[in-house]
Amino acid sequence: MDKKNQVPIIDRPFIAWSIAGLILFSVVTFSIGTLPNLSPTTKAFLYYSEIVVVGLFSIEYLCRIYISTQKLRFIFSFYGLIDLLAILPFYLGLFIDLRALRLVRLLRLLRILKLARYNLAIFRFVRAIYLAKEELIIFTIASFVLLFLAAVGIYHFEHEAQPEVFRSILDALWWAVATLTTVGYGDIYPITGGGRLFTFGILMIGLGMIAVPTGIIASSLSDVRRQLEEERLRKEVEINSTLSPESDTKH
Amino acid sequence: MDKKNQVPIIDRPFIAWSIAGLILFSVVTFSIGTLPNLSPTTKAFLYYSEIVVVGLFSIEYLCRIYISTQKLRFIFSFYGLIDLLAILPFYLGLFIDLRALRLVRLLRLLRILKLARYNLAIFRFVRAIYLAKEELIIFTIASFVLLFLAAVGIYHFEHEAQPEVFRSILDALWWAVATLTTVGYGDIYPITGGGRLFTFGILMIGLGMIAVPTGIIASSLSDVRRQLEEERLRKEVEINSTLSPESDTKH
Amino acid sequence: MDKKNQVPIIDRPFIAWSIAGLILFSVVTFSIGTLPNLSPTTKAFLYYSEIVVVGLFSIEYLCRIYISTQKLRFIFSFYGLIDLLAILPFYLGLFIDLRALRLVRLLRLLRILKLARYNLAIFRFVRAIYLAKEELIIFTIASFVLLFLAAVGIYHFEHEAQPEVFRSILDALWWAVATLTTVGYGDIYPITGGGRLFTFGILMIGLGMIAVPTGIIASSLSDVRRQLEEERLRKEVEINSTLSPESDTKH
Amino acid sequence: MDKKNQVPIIDRPFIAWSIAGLILFSVVTFSIGTLPNLSPTTKAFLYYSEIVVVGLFSIEYLCRIYISTQKLRFIFSFYGLIDLLAILPFYLGLFIDLRALRLVRLLRLLRILKLARYNLAIFRFVRAIYLAKEELIIFTIASFVLLFLAAVGIYHFEHEAQPEVFRSILDALWWAVATLTTVGYGDIYPITGGGRLFTFGILMIGLGMIAVPTGIIASSLSDVRRQLEEERLRKEVEINSTLSPESDTKH
Repeated sequence: MDKKNQVPIIDRPFIAWSIAGLILFSVVTFSIGTLPNLSPTTKAFLYYSEIVVVGLFSIEYLCRIYISTQKLRFIFSFYGLIDLLAILPFYLGLFIDLRALRLVRLLRLLRILKLARYNLAIFRFVRAIYLAKEELIIFTIASFVLLFLAAVGIYHFEHEAQPEVFRSILDALWWAVATLTTVGYGDIYPITGGGRLFTFGILMIGLGMIAVPTGIIASSLSDVRRQLEEERLRKEVEINSTLSPESDTKH
Repeated sequence: MDKKNQVPIIDRPFIAWSIAGLILFSVVTFSIGTLPNLSPTTKAFLYYSEIVVVGLFSIEYLCRIYISTQKLRFIFSFYGLIDLLAILPFYLGLFIDLRALRLVRLLRLLRILKLARYNLAIFRFVRAIYLAKEELIIFTIASFVLLFLAAVGIYHFEHEAQPEVFRSILDALWWAVATLTTVGYGDIYPITGGGRLFTFGILMIGLGMIAVPTGIIASSLSDVRRQLEEERLRKEVEINSTLSPESDTKH
Repeated sequence: MDKKNQVPIIDRPFIAWSIAGLILFSVVTFSIGTLPNLSPTTKAFLYYSEIVVVGLFSIEYLCRIYISTQKLRFIFSFYGLIDLLAILPFYLGLFIDLRALRLVRLLRLLRILKLARYNLAIFRFVRAIYLAKEELIIFTIASFVLLFLAAVGIYHFEHEAQPEVFRSILDALWWAVATLTTVGYGDIYPITGGGRLFTFGILMIGLGMIAVPTGIIASSLSDVRRQLEEERLRKEVEINSTLSPESDTKH
Repeated sequence: MDKKNQVPIIDRPFIAWSIAGLILFSVVTFSIGTLPNLSPTTKAFLYYSEIVVVGLFSIEYLCRIYISTQKLRFIFSFYGLIDLLAILPFYLGLFIDLRALRLVRLLRLLRILKLARYNLAIFRFVRAIYLAKEELIIFTIASFVLLFLAAVGIYHFEHEAQPEVFRSILDALWWAVATLTTVGYGDIYPITGGGRLFTFGILMIGLGMIAVPTGIIASSLSDVRRQLEEERLRKEVEINSTLSPESDTKH
C-alpha cells in the first residue's frame, strides 16, 4: 500500500510500457531511414514521427527532473544521462552540420537501455551470473584457447589445398568462429580429408563446450531460486516467532 | 474408477489417437495438394480423401454436440469453434467461388490444435513457463536489444564494403537473425576484418543468451516437478493424519 | 568377488574393448570400400582385413554359444541374432550373386549395436527418458505442429517471389526442417521482407522449443540421480538397522 | 594469512594476469605473422615484439627455477616443461634452418596451457565431468553410431541423384558431421525427397542427443555444487562440535 504511493506516476506500468513502445517505434523508423531510394512521403513521415518521439521524450525528461527531489543527482545519474543522450542528438542536429548527424544517431540506441529500468526481476539473473562467475571466466578462456587451436589446426590442413580461402591464421580464426558457433555460413570450409576429420574432432569438443555455459546457467539459476525461497522461509519463520512466540510450529 | 466413467466414449485414447492420425493424414494430403503438375489420378485421390476426412470430422462434431449436456456452451467453447472451423471451409467451398477456397484452407490447420485436447500433461509445461514468466520476458526483450545492436554494428562495418548486400539496417537485421540463431544460411555474411571481429564478439554474447532460456526452462521444469511431488506428499500426510490420528508424525 | 567370477572371460573389459575396436575398424574399412577408383592394393587389403574381422567375429560367436548354459536361448536372443547377422552376410556373399552383397552389407552395421552390450550405465538414461516420457511425446507433437505451421507460413510469403525454390508445401517443409534445427544449408531461404520477419518470429519460438528437451532431459537426469542416491541410502539404513538394532537412528 | 605468504611473488594475481596478457599478445602476433604480403615495418615490429616476449618468458622461467626449493623437480614437472617448450623454439630458431622454425612454432601455443595454472576453480569442472564420466562415454559412443548410421542412410538415398557430391560413405560422413552439429556449411545437402525425409528423422534424433550432454553437465555441475556445500557444512559442524562440546547438535 505505502509502496504504491512511493512509485511516481511516470514509473507506473502503463506509462512505462507506453515509453517502451515509443522506443521500439523510434528504433523501427531509424532502421527504415537507412533504406536507399525512400519516397519523399516516407521521408516526411519519418521526419515528423522523429519530431513527435523526441518531443515526448523531452517532456518525459523534464517531468523526471521536476518530480525528483534531488534534481542535480538525477541529471548526473546513469539513467539521467541516458535520458539526455536519447534526445540531445536531435537538438544538436538542428544546428550542426547534417553529416555529423549520422554518427550521433547511433547513440539514440542507448534509449533501449532505459527498458532495463522498468524491470527488477533482472536481479535474479545478475545473482545467478555472479554465482557462476568463476566458471564463466574459465569457460571464456577455454573458448579462446579452443578457437585458436582450431584455427592453427585447420590452417595447417587446408592452407595448401585452398591458399585463396585459408590465406592466414586470421582467415582460419574466422572459420573457427563460424564453425564452433555452428553458424556455418558456407563461405569457408575444409575440403581435404584431414581437414574434415580435424573439423569433426574439434566440433565434438566444441559442442561439449557450448553445452557447458548452458549447464552452468541452468544449475546457477536453479540454485538462486532455491536460495531466495529459503531466505523467504527463514524470514517468515523469524517474523512468526517474533509476533507469536507460540506459533504453528507447536503441536 | 468414477473418473473413467465420466470420460465420454469419443475421448477414449483409441478414438483420440485415431482422430489425431486423421488430422495428420489430412495435413499430408493438403501438403501434397500444393505440388505443381499433379496427375489426374492423384488429384482424384486427394479430392475423395478430403471428402472422407471432412465426413468423419463432421460425424465427430455432431457426436460431441449430442453427448454434451450443455450443447450451446460446447458449440461456442474454444474447442467447439475449432471443431466447426475445421470442417466449415469444405462445405463453404461447395457454394462459393473456388478461388477463395485456397486461402480458407489455411484455417484447416487449426485442426492440429485439437491434438492438444487429448493430453493433460501440458499442465506441467504451462506451470513451468508461468514460474519462469518474468525471466522469459526479460530474455525476449534482451534478445531484441541484442539483435538491433548487432544489426547497427554490422551495418556500420560492412555497408561500405558490401553496399549491395548490407543495403540498410533491415538487411543487417536479417543477418543478425540468421547469425544469432546460428542458422547461417550463407546469403549474407561479413567480409571485413572489423565485421568478422564484431561478429565473433556478438556471437559470444548471443550464444550465452541462447543458453539462458534453456537454463530457465530446465531449472523451472525441475522445480515444478519437485513442487508437485511435495504437494502430493503433503496431501498423503494430511489424508493419513485424518484417517489415523495417531500416525507416524507422532514420536 | 563372487560377481567377478560370474562374468565369462569373453565379457571381461579387455576383450570387450578389443571387440569394440574391431567393430570400429570394420566400419572404417566398409566406408573406405565405397570410395570410387580404389587401387588394387587397397582393394586387396580391404578384402583380407574383411576376412580377418569376420573370422574373429565367427570365433567370438562360437565361443559365446559354447560358454552359454542355455545355448538355444542365446542363439535366439536379441544379441545372439545380432551376432549372427554380423557375420552371416559375408558367408552368404561367397555363394550368392555379388550384386546382392551391396545391400546386405548395410546389415553389418548392426554390429555396432553390440557396443551397447558392454555398458550397464545406459540404465540411468533409460530411466531418465522414461521419467520424462510424457513431456518428450508432447514436445515431439509440438515440433511437428510448429514445423508444419512454419512451412505453410513461409510458402504463403515466398511462393510468389521464388516459385522455383518454394515450389510446394513440401519444399517449404524442407526449409522449415533446415531452419528450425538451425542447420541452415543455404539452399533455400526467404528473400521477401514478410518472409524474413516470419522466419524471425518462427525462430524465436523454435529455439525456445529446442531448449525444452534439453531442459527436460537435464532435470530428468538430475532427478534420477537423486532418486538412485536416496534408494541407496534407504537400503543402507535398512541394512544397518537389521544388522545392529541399536544403530544411530536411536536418540 | 599463512596461505598468502606461501604464494610466491610470481604467482600473485597481478603478475599472473600480466603473463596471461603477454601470452595472448604473442598469439595475436603469431597469427598476424602468417598473413601474406606483410610490409617490412610490420615484419620488423613482429620480430622485435617476439624478442621481447621470449625475453620476458625466459626471465619468468629463470625466476621460477630460482624460487622453487626442489629445482630439478620443477624443471621436469608438467608446467616446467611447458615453460621451457614455450621459449626453446625461439633459441633453437637462431641456430637451425629457418624452414624448420615454422613447424616448431606451433609448440608455442602450449604457452596457453599455462593459463590453466592460475585458476583453481577448474576443480569443480573436473569433478562434474568425473561424476558424469560414464554418461559422457556412452554419449560419445552413441554419437559415433548415429553419425555412421546417418552417413550410410544418406549415401543410400543421395548417391544416385548426386554421384559427384556423395561420392562415398566418407563424403556422407562429412555431411553427417556438418548436419548433426547443425553447422550446415551448404557444400553438401540432400536434394531427393527420401534424403530430405531421412535428414529430418536423423536430425530429430540428433538434436535430442546434443541436448543430452548439456543436460548431463548441467545436472552434474548442480550436484557437485550441492556436494561441496554439504561437505563444507559438515566440516563446520565437526569444527563446532570439537571446539564447543555442547553445541547445537545437543537436544
